[in-house]
Amino acid sequence: MTADMERPGEFELIARHFAPIAGPGGLGLVDDAGLLRPARGYEIVVTADTLVAGVHFFPDDPPGSIARKALAVNLSDLAAKGAKPEGFVLALALPKGWTESWLAAFATGLKQAADAGGCPLIGGDTVSTPGPLTLSITAFGSVPAGRMVLRSGAKPGDMLAVSGTIGDGALGLKVHGPAAPSWVAGLSEGHRAALTERFLHPQPRLRLAAGLQAHASAAMDVSDGLVGDLAKLLKASGAAELAWTGGDDYEILCTASQGEYPALAAAAAAAGIALTAIGVVTGATGAVQYREKGRARRFATGSFAHF
Amino acid sequence: MTADMERPGEFELIARHFAPIAGPGGLGLVDDAGLLRPARGYEIVVTADTLVAGVHFFPDDPPGSIARKALAVNLSDLAAKGAKPEGFVLALALPKGWTESWLAAFATGLKQAADAGGCPLIGGDTVSTPGPLTLSITAFGSVPAGRMVLRSGAKPGDMLAVSGTIGDGALGLKVHGPAAPSWVAGLSEGHRAALTERFLHPQPRLRLAAGLQAHASAAMDVSDGLVGDLAKLLKASGAAELAWTGGDDYEILCTASQGEYPALAAAAAAAGIALTAIGVVTGATGAVQYREKGRARRFATGSFAHF
Repeated sequence: MTADMERPGEFELIARHFAPIAGPGGLGLVDDAGLLRPARGYEIVVTADTLVAGVHFFPDDPPGSIARKALAVNLSDLAAKGAKPEGFVLALALPKGWTESWLAAFATGLKQAADAGGCPLIGGDTVSTPGPLTLSITAFGSVPAGRMVLRSGAKPGDMLAVSGTIGDGALGLKVHGPAAPSWVAGLSEGHRAALTERFLHPQPRLRLAAGLQAHASAAMDVSDGLVGDLAKLLKASGAAELAWTGGDDYEILCTASQGEYPALAAAAAAAGIALTAIGVVTGATGAVQYREKGRARRFATGSFAHF
Repeated sequence: MTADMERPGEFELIARHFAPIAGPGGLGLVDDAGLLRPARGYEIVVTADTLVAGVHFFPDDPPGSIARKALAVNLSDLAAKGAKPEGFVLALALPKGWTESWLAAFATGLKQAADAGGCPLIGGDTVSTPGPLTLSITAFGSVPAGRMVLRSGAKPGDMLAVSGTIGDGALGLKVHGPAAPSWVAGLSEGHRAALTERFLHPQPRLRLAAGLQAHASAAMDVSDGLVGDLAKLLKASGAAELAWTGGDDYEILCTASQGEYPALAAAAAAAGIALTAIGVVTGATGAVQYREKGRARRFATGSFAHF
């Protein structure tokens, strides 16, 4: 019996590994489509993120970690938009040589993330590829009509804040990667484990979503580095006082009016999520400027760019 | 100047090539998410299909054709579910060496298919891959609540019908592929062109969607070969009198009660789409049986399987 013969076909694969992750909208994953049924007065926020082995994660990362990260980065986007997760579809391109045990561990991690996020699988597609493992997740969340938190809503005078800590993900990549820099050896085992955990298993800030929806003027998640992501948010221009380059944070960058900020901070505290005010949006036009203690600061590297 | 330097960055790429395809729900493609706003009393049908170069299309196929096919196969699923297209997201993994002109042609084809289907882009993700070009599209359609046409609704006594012609896509693959069988030389140039067109540019049967929604008891699109797809539809078992193996048809396989079938046939005729009754669902249990002129018929090859 070859390894191939021990692997399930597409339909058995779906029934065995993915059906347990499906919600009612997935219709048992036996149809060509799933269903989203927003409550009256609600809209559906749609976000998509693709992860490629060797680009967004290491091919030999634990399969459950790959799955958890793929869903988490999408849930992070929903949280930033103030949306409540409702479901997701998974497009999975499996490379040659995948094994049943790899897929079982992948599905276990995916179920863990789906359960934690309250975001069931409602459909997808599984194909083979001669290339690397590629996962595209499209995730759906609900918001009251007209209440999605935009990237573009920041106004002069608004407080600028960020959740959690920034930079851990980028440090975790260094610690976890194949050619760790020399400073990694100087870290305690506990620190190394904590940073690796931040890189492998970003925690979407879903408990901040309701507060953002009620109080934020703009928000986005920090996935490509705070400096570059801040520049995107402040397209209409502004200034912030402290920043950090790097990626993989999956924290929330947001703005709120001076009037709303205390309520947003209270909502974050109630959710147990640190929220740090890092600046104020100014009315200045032109490129985004960073000032630290009143002095201009420049960053050699901006946002992570794919091309 | 290297070729790389002539290529746009991710954000310029989106603004230049994809923003013209975006609908209002895409929010200009400058946010992290798009929006679906179903009308009151409607639900959202969600379907996803992934295409990989070298698996689902030839890497040197015209880029516009690749884009058109990627959207068409998703719109075909929406049509089969009786849904009206509302939008789609594109997850695009670009291989090394992509060029600006390739992407421009791809986007032109995508816009053509989006305009023809009334299905604008509302979001997506663009990444680089060391592997082959990979496209995952998730498409959304609307149906009145509870009216999605399921795969599982066929009942004993229902008429079984298929739209258009079956087998052209599979023949088109033979004609278009690199090692055409000897019989291809015996075809006229016109026939070869027509079959290639059917393979490269499947036409989603969107004009049949309303008729299916009103009159069909079950439906699915025929993408993996009629024999295998019919077996899927008739899980609860049944019988059909004629079938054909092969794939890439993107026609609609459907059932309707004897009472509704004339109305469905009239709707198809009004839409200018051929609809052929190919059998009747029986109440027999067990494996799907094919009978031609009363005699059992077997097929050596069933549905296309990825694994």
